[in-house]
Amino acid sequence: MAGMRIGMQTIALSTRPAICGNAAYAGKKEGEGPLGTEFDFVTQDELYHQDTFELAEKQLYLDAIRKAIRKGGAKPEEVQFLLGGDLLNQIITASFSARDLGIPFIGLYGACSTMAESLALGSMLLDGGHAEQVVCAASSHFCTAERQYRYPLEFGAQRPPTSQWTVTGAGATLLSTEPKAPVLANVTQVCMGRVVDLGITDANNMGAAMAPAAADTLLALFSDTRTMPEDYDLILTGDLGQIGHDLLMQLMREQRMPLPDEHYTDCGLLIYDRETQDVHAGGSGCGCSAVVLNAHILPRLQSGQLRRIIFMATGALMSLTSSQQGESIPGIAHAVVLESPAAGTLPLRPA
Amino acid sequence: MAGMRIGMQTIALSTRPAICGNAAYAGKKEGEGPLGTEFDFVTQDELYHQDTFELAEKQLYLDAIRKAIRKGGAKPEEVQFLLGGDLLNQIITASFSARDLGIPFIGLYGACSTMAESLALGSMLLDGGHAEQVVCAASSHFCTAERQYRYPLEFGAQRPPTSQWTVTGAGATLLSTEPKAPVLANVTQVCMGRVVDLGITDANNMGAAMAPAAADTLLALFSDTRTMPEDYDLILTGDLGQIGHDLLMQLMREQRMPLPDEHYTDCGLLIYDRETQDVHAGGSGCGCSAVVLNAHILPRLQSGQLRRIIFMATGALMSLTSSQQGESIPGIAHAVVLESPAAGTLPLRPA
Repeated sequence: MAGMRIGMQTIALSTRPAICGNAAYAGKKEGEGPLGTEFDFVTQDELYHQDTFELAEKQLYLDAIRKAIRKGGAKPEEVQFLLGGDLLNQIITASFSARDLGIPFIGLYGACSTMAESLALGSMLLDGGHAEQVVCAASSHFCTAERQYRYPLEFGAQRPPTSQWTVTGAGATLLSTEPKAPVLANVTQVCMGRVVDLGITDANNMGAAMAPAAADTLLALFSDTRTMPEDYDLILTGDLGQIGHDLLMQLMREQRMPLPDEHYTDCGLLIYDRETQDVHAGGSGCGCSAVVLNAHILPRLQSGQLRRIIFMATGALMSLTSSQQGESIPGIAHAVVLESPAAGTLPLRPA
Repeated sequence: MAGMRIGMQTIALSTRPAICGNAAYAGKKEGEGPLGTEFDFVTQDELYHQDTFELAEKQLYLDAIRKAIRKGGAKPEEVQFLLGGDLLNQIITASFSARDLGIPFIGLYGACSTMAESLALGSMLLDGGHAEQVVCAASSHFCTAERQYRYPLEFGAQRPPTSQWTVTGAGATLLSTEPKAPVLANVTQVCMGRVVDLGITDANNMGAAMAPAAADTLLALFSDTRTMPEDYDLILTGDLGQIGHDLLMQLMREQRMPLPDEHYTDCGLLIYDRETQDVHAGGSGCGCSAVVLNAHILPRLQSGQLRRIIFMATGALMSLTSSQQGESIPGIAHAVVLESPAAGTLPLRPA
């Protein structure tokens, strides 16, 4: 057997599944941000030439998947599974994309943790010999998410300072046991998260709702692998935004496992220029970590600028119904450890 | 590596992961049906002593999981993953249950295919050595599903003859590499389905929307494994109901792979007495196949009354938004092959 469970939550992947295709399709606002030039494509039109925002999101999703497969030197009919999800009810973005692609479909729901959930599961399927090639994907769209989770766009609701801006974008990653394109990164460990809920009920403060789950998974990963935050060039959380970022720093300090400032950041803080782009606490949505990972991080792993990182996407698992019924917001965080192919096989703890 | 892909969609699991715990918690109407005496528990109260129908569904889910784990001789803290989903937006039943259980959570969305999706994924994780013990679960509740997908219950909408009745119930299955309780069945092959859509737009005719996906997965499984319908004691579909059942029979005849009447049935036809229970085309919902499998089928595999079966749950992947926007209903079907521990290792094609 290929997998080896180390500790309660972490699994080491002895075959080191390879990431060999990546794509990020983003919206106009994301294109105007600091990562704008790194995306594969930036649409200037929120409808992306479609009739509805939902169809626009689906088209971004499809295009990102097709591009990732092509960049990985493969064809859709050679890919065994699409592991994917999104934020919409019944994950229609992923489901309708799977219909168009014809790839066997494993539908996931992990809210904004989906990119990490799909990478973790996809890597395990490759590691176990159950597939040779899988594609993982996640997306969000500001216009579809706002009207589903919050208010009609036309209403123009005021946004509190704790709120985050849902990213319009789709990211896709091709994993392969026999890569036909240069390897961007290897997945060496995965850590699946538990659902943690400390009682936050404010749907405009998702960062605070998700930070405890992020701390829980990070602590499990460090404990299971006997590593420390300093053993990683970068710890990258999904979309905690500024509030969640600061809370996670505080929680980790309290657990005597402080995250060094220069080694820790959040996708929600990287994607926009918060001085000029009016996004309050930062970016959010499944698409946030999906496009930041694929456009910004994987190339830096490929080049060796980053040698080993933790990519941990975080999700808030509430629904409109649960919020209306007064329930608090459960959070979850899944983590994958990614290593640079340029770095050779790293010892788990550098000397 | 443990898994072996045979053909495009089917994977043989050489370690034959064992099912050693099963539980089915059902509602009053289901308790009055032909399988009533086989459920672990039947609640007489649709609220199951909770304040809302959503909390009632969550409690059924939790109780079924805890019971399956206990029957399997395990404790929740020994289980590495909960793989689960349900029909509600953002799968709040599964997510909130995962919060209460503290088991690392892999959230799935496959609509009514969830029980098969979770069993297939869970079996692969065991087969690959990535877990020693996982629990798989799915549920639905008539009152939560009706008001989310169709009309407020108080509205009393008339139901057309093609419609199906959403099952109130939760099913859970414990899989283990080192079972501490008698083995009920072994998972020997899995076949992950593609999304198929032949253009049905009537949300009151889900059977017709899902039948083409069911045929697609069955044909892939037969072709990949070089087996025929007669090689299985039973082919059990998820919740096609009468319309979908008849359509699947017709599609398979057209593909020259007819399903023999005495070897094929549907969970949606088994759970209610359609003569007396006024359920029109039969049962539906994630919970339908979940409780039928766990209460009715697994014991018959354990006893050897059934030697090898295909359990294939089917899902309709539309949302309220996609329906309102005029989209047709994509279907999916995932299959697992289950063998009786009493039968020894069966040859794939009996002589």
